[in-house]
Amino acid sequence: TITFDPSTHPHRRLNPLTNEYVLVSPHRTKRPWLGQTEPPQASNLPEYDPQCYLCPGNARAGGQRNETYNNTMIFENDFAAVLPPPCPAPPPAPHPLLTTEPVHGGCDVLIFHPRHDLTLARLSVPDIERIIEEWRTVYKKRGTQEDIAYVQIFENKGAMMGCSNPHPHGQVWSLSAIPSLPGSELTNMRRYSLTDVPPSGAPRGPLGRPCMLCEYAHFEVGASSEQGRVVVKNDDWVALVPWWAIWPFEVMLLPYKRHVPSIAHLTPAEKSSFADILSKVTKRYDNLFSCSFAYSMGIHQRPVLPKEDVGLPDDQDEDNIAHLHLHFSPPLLRSASVRKFLVGFELMAEPQRDLTPEQAAARLRACSEVHYLDRDG
Amino acid sequence: TITFDPSTHPHRRLNPLTNEYVLVSPHRTKRPWLGQTEPPQASNLPEYDPQCYLCPGNARAGGQRNETYNNTMIFENDFAAVLPPPCPAPPPAPHPLLTTEPVHGGCDVLIFHPRHDLTLARLSVPDIERIIEEWRTVYKKRGTQEDIAYVQIFENKGAMMGCSNPHPHGQVWSLSAIPSLPGSELTNMRRYSLTDVPPSGAPRGPLGRPCMLCEYAHFEVGASSEQGRVVVKNDDWVALVPWWAIWPFEVMLLPYKRHVPSIAHLTPAEKSSFADILSKVTKRYDNLFSCSFAYSMGIHQRPVLPKEDVGLPDDQDEDNIAHLHLHFSPPLLRSASVRKFLVGFELMAEPQRDLTPEQAAARLRACSEVHYLDRDG
Ligand SMILES: O=P(O)(O)O[C@H]1O[C@H](CO)[C@@H](O)[C@H](O)[C@H]1O
Ligand SMILES: O=P(O)(O)O[C@H]1O[C@H](CO)[C@@H](O)[C@H](O)[C@H]1O
Repeated sequence: TITFDPSTHPHRRLNPLTNEYVLVSPHRTKRPWLGQTEPPQASNLPEYDPQCYLCPGNARAGGQRNETYNNTMIFENDFAAVLPPPCPAPPPAPHPLLTTEPVHGGCDVLIFHPRHDLTLARLSVPDIERIIEEWRTVYKKRGTQEDIAYVQIFENKGAMMGCSNPHPHGQVWSLSAIPSLPGSELTNMRRYSLTDVPPSGAPRGPLGRPCMLCEYAHFEVGASSEQGRVVVKNDDWVALVPWWAIWPFEVMLLPYKRHVPSIAHLTPAEKSSFADILSKVTKRYDNLFSCSFAYSMGIHQRPVLPKEDVGLPDDQDEDNIAHLHLHFSPPLLRSASVRKFLVGFELMAEPQRDLTPEQAAARLRACSEVHYLDRDG
Repeated sequence: TITFDPSTHPHRRLNPLTNEYVLVSPHRTKRPWLGQTEPPQASNLPEYDPQCYLCPGNARAGGQRNETYNNTMIFENDFAAVLPPPCPAPPPAPHPLLTTEPVHGGCDVLIFHPRHDLTLARLSVPDIERIIEEWRTVYKKRGTQEDIAYVQIFENKGAMMGCSNPHPHGQVWSLSAIPSLPGSELTNMRRYSLTDVPPSGAPRGPLGRPCMLCEYAHFEVGASSEQGRVVVKNDDWVALVPWWAIWPFEVMLLPYKRHVPSIAHLTPAEKSSFADILSKVTKRYDNLFSCSFAYSMGIHQRPVLPKEDVGLPDDQDEDNIAHLHLHFSPPLLRSASVRKFLVGFELMAEPQRDLTPEQAAARLRACSEVHYLDRDG
């Protein structure tokens, strides 16, 4: 009889956050690639680009002019996907299968740094800490607006990921409703918190109940590192390729020492170590294929903060069910020019991946934390 | 007070097949596009390409040589994502959150036509009927194999959609498990069939129970065509941009006159009208931006046929809950070179679209059914 080898035998893994499967077909990496290749990344970007609508002092699409900011800068998106109220109520559904929900909110753009040519991977850790501080500010500000139910912080990096400007920036979309994906994560996390999980030494969520991601991170940090999925960890945070990763070099980044509902709950030390690990992960990403590594990144956490201070300690507040985590979804598979296409079977049936999460983690562990552009010689 | 206008006011629509929302932000179409543009499609492909591993008589990656086929040809994928048994059982999960399911099956490639330079949009209707006949054959063959639980027929068309060879072909992946997405569609269709839906004149599913897609298609065909989502219909089939479409010009294609669980259940007349409407939809697609329109297409239907004939009439067979339908997911948004990127917010929170399904349907209705390359003058 043959024994099961995850890097040879196709199998399916369940993502407990979404309750969906991923099909793992590791032998597919042997397939020759004859399809589309990505154009080389623009290297040698100028530090300042007079045409860039995000550079200091330049004019934006909406006509306004940027300040000559020195660190970060935040402004409302000139082409926002959701708009502030009033938002008229849709008419009754013409058929029960054709329902419309009103939605409103606001979209912010956060410029990470005045330099046009830098990215998270090349910013200093103190610069990254300033970005984290901006995320906390906007999360608290938007998330305490009366009619906002959810704040999504994200970054699209790279033309391959639909980013239309290489100037380092991210976005924040705040909505009057919880979107489908975080909604399903929250449902599954709440369900998990109500199950009977024997003590494992992992931190617990509010009211001493189990937290799916505390449990998961604790297991991964404790597992054998040689075969494991951990890429890098520091005092508070771990970056790992999750067991159920879809994208070739997908990474989940989360605090593993205590239950942390949101970026607003971070201690000063956790904020600094967050900046440290963001720097390390993005440097490893760039070093993997010696290119500016494209990805979509998103922060999942408690949808919003309480609208008014209810005076409950964090660990008594049932609504603190979420555990802060970041998803990185990068498309590259084999080199700076060969990506994974999530199409066909993936769109119609189920995501499929070509190398195991363990293989991806090993590749990322082997990468240096000194950026390839900063190396001597 | 302002009245709600779906083509001005952002709103969310629920997809009852997946129970997930899409965010509709129609005003976003005004946004200038400064991001990545797609390279022009290779036009002037030769009728025969000596380098193509799908052309008649040529050698494939696995070493075998293709027959000099005249119509369609089917063979097993040389780099299959699932493999035939034996498939060793995975070891017990190291933690309840890290589960592995064994999976096996087979992957077939179906070449649509010997000509390297043609696509569905440029094949004759009888040629398309031959492809449908092959789909029926492989669905019946794979789907009655003892250990196969699901057969996914799909096509990736265009380099933009990860297709590595322009020679017209599709794929068929047959698995020992029902994948996540059709699994969730089936769950929601079954749930719907058990609800109390007042008679609307729509066909009913087995045991006289409501069928979600019969109900939906019946409503759309009867709705006012000017404002509607119907692109084209014939005696048996309707092609429409669903209320809950994600991709800019997404189309759902389905029979609307009676409940049809799978392609194996089609009458000879329905088979011919299927070829007719496939031709019409793909021609309209190519004509929209005068290019070979990229998409992923997938057939959703009854997962497999009964392993042995149980002698039940179709309308008594409870397992006939599925209603045959095709999804077309095309990425282009504004022109042959500007696509929609489903990234960032879409990957982290919820799909977002820039024009309404009604606007997309109107655009497709306005397209000719004579292919732009076949027009005189
Ligand atoms: O098998 P192909 O066409 O070479 O590959 C394409 O389709 C597959 C199935 O949808 C995907 O998994 C691949 O990422 C894509 O490139
Ligand atoms: O807002 P941007 O960066 O111009 O646009 C990009 O991100 C958005 C949010 O993820 C997507 O909806 C767009 O398709 C993408 O091109």
